[in-house]
Amino acid sequence: MKKKLLYIFVLLIFTMAGNLHAEDTLPSWNDGATKQSIITFVEEVTDKDSKSYVKSEERIAVFDNDGTLWAEKPIYFQLEFVKDRIKELAPSHPEWKTEQPFKAVLENDNKALAESGYEGLMKLLMATHSGMTQAEFQDIAEQWLDTAKHPRFNRPYNELVYQPMLELLAYLRANGFKTYIVSGGGIEFMRPWTEEVYGIPPEQVVGSSLKTEFEMRDGKPVLVRKGEIQFLDDKEVKPVLINSHIGRRPIAAFGNSDGDLQMLQWTAAGNGPSLMVLVHHTDAKREWAYDKDSHIGRLDKALTQANTDGWTVIDMKEDWKTVFPFQSQ
Amino acid sequence: MKKKLLYIFVLLIFTMAGNLHAEDTLPSWNDGATKQSIITFVEEVTDKDSKSYVKSEERIAVFDNDGTLWAEKPIYFQLEFVKDRIKELAPSHPEWKTEQPFKAVLENDNKALAESGYEGLMKLLMATHSGMTQAEFQDIAEQWLDTAKHPRFNRPYNELVYQPMLELLAYLRANGFKTYIVSGGGIEFMRPWTEEVYGIPPEQVVGSSLKTEFEMRDGKPVLVRKGEIQFLDDKEVKPVLINSHIGRRPIAAFGNSDGDLQMLQWTAAGNGPSLMVLVHHTDAKREWAYDKDSHIGRLDKALTQANTDGWTVIDMKEDWKTVFPFQSQ
Repeated sequence: MKKKLLYIFVLLIFTMAGNLHAEDTLPSWNDGATKQSIITFVEEVTDKDSKSYVKSEERIAVFDNDGTLWAEKPIYFQLEFVKDRIKELAPSHPEWKTEQPFKAVLENDNKALAESGYEGLMKLLMATHSGMTQAEFQDIAEQWLDTAKHPRFNRPYNELVYQPMLELLAYLRANGFKTYIVSGGGIEFMRPWTEEVYGIPPEQVVGSSLKTEFEMRDGKPVLVRKGEIQFLDDKEVKPVLINSHIGRRPIAAFGNSDGDLQMLQWTAAGNGPSLMVLVHHTDAKREWAYDKDSHIGRLDKALTQANTDGWTVIDMKEDWKTVFPFQSQ
Repeated sequence: MKKKLLYIFVLLIFTMAGNLHAEDTLPSWNDGATKQSIITFVEEVTDKDSKSYVKSEERIAVFDNDGTLWAEKPIYFQLEFVKDRIKELAPSHPEWKTEQPFKAVLENDNKALAESGYEGLMKLLMATHSGMTQAEFQDIAEQWLDTAKHPRFNRPYNELVYQPMLELLAYLRANGFKTYIVSGGGIEFMRPWTEEVYGIPPEQVVGSSLKTEFEMRDGKPVLVRKGEIQFLDDKEVKPVLINSHIGRRPIAAFGNSDGDLQMLQWTAAGNGPSLMVLVHHTDAKREWAYDKDSHIGRLDKALTQANTDGWTVIDMKEDWKTVFPFQSQ
């Protein structure tokens, strides 16, 4: 009995403390240079005898969300959420019938919507989602996620996450990494579900935000979302918010578009070892294929620098056995 | 041999998982209502059988820094740092001889300096500390802390921390709390030393900040501190930054001045159990005695609300056996 207990404790401690073997924890990744570059990096930074060893508290890994952890086609999922809200609120806003980007939403014109870009997205966000408290907004977002379905896959949006990236997040955490989201998406839009879906708690989610004010309503303090952008967490702003939220330079960064370039550059410029990874969407059959000509998730300059500097580029079609959890291998 | 190992493992696991007894971990606190209110709260929220039980991931405790974790007299320590920098840079700024708050610094006029308030502090910060990179600024701050001495105690400033609060931080963390600093002080001023002194890592430090921009300098990405305030982390802004950095409402908040009132109100307004604590500076002999008439660390409205709402008020003179670690009991 005692021997058995001892065995369990020893097993437990080895499992918790040791490196989890990547072979067991990245089953949806095909063997090859991409998978190997990740495993080699993780093994080196966790090996106390390696000159690349990095203390656990400094093993910071940052992930873009749209197109890196979950899909972003035909349009950013947050924009689908906004569209649904716009349609709900449209009866009280007759002017939206002729005004972009509202018109595009009401007419389901995704091309015009995409062309309005992040600026357009933020306009829609502010027109529809400011004025309420942070708690009220999170309720609205959660309710939407519980009911809305993706147009192509007819599944809840948070099932459109990449199985290989879920495995990668777990693998990194099992090796002492702290995993963060650093996304152009809204911080309060993501926080209600990232812990359940990705295992990433609210305090490790960084994103775009509206100005927020502390107010007293009926004698109770509330945080009210104002109609003004605080941070648009894209491009040059990503390293700035990484610094303000985390205060440490990441040693690993994962993105998929030019919006992630500066985050990867910032990570690459550290003194120690670093891993820069791009998800290249090459799989029109299981997901989508797009890069430099896409309005959403444009990948051009970052791909060029990845090739020049030897960053890891995931070829979705070649490197991933499974894309979404619901697709069998 | 195996029995002994088993014993060690069991001991280890009990020590790690169980509540550490407050009696052993708060030795610098006198017994009484104050200490008891903290212990009772911690025991309730960690007791799975209690209706006040709070899951570990939601045990967020926020601490003001100036006057709560370390002293703030005769002036905020960050202002001492600024003064030293101003004096260093003064030869190139003859205009400072007649311009406030620079004049006050050069003439060692602490009263005039205190009267310039947080606005004045921020002016001095920007005039002396913008333009360089975040890394360069942290080097300057660290170098100062390594050499500067407190005028009254003639010791490094980071020895002017409160021994009972160090014990409290450790006690809370041993009980599954995540401890954060939420301070009006500069975020980058605090981060270089909070981990070593308080056990609080950079990602759990929230503070005032300057606008920061990502730039390329000599082909290397850097984060440059601009001459404009991003956030003044005081009063109404504290709950806003708690929300943006942490994304969860704290269940325990510790402050010492009216600048902490909204943070305590925000904490008190949660649905579950909460603990609001004020450090009342009542000990002119071992530290300082001040409250509603002090320019620095004014405690007036918050003390009134503490008395009305039954928040815990630490009477420094009565409740603390030791104030600073270097003072023997």
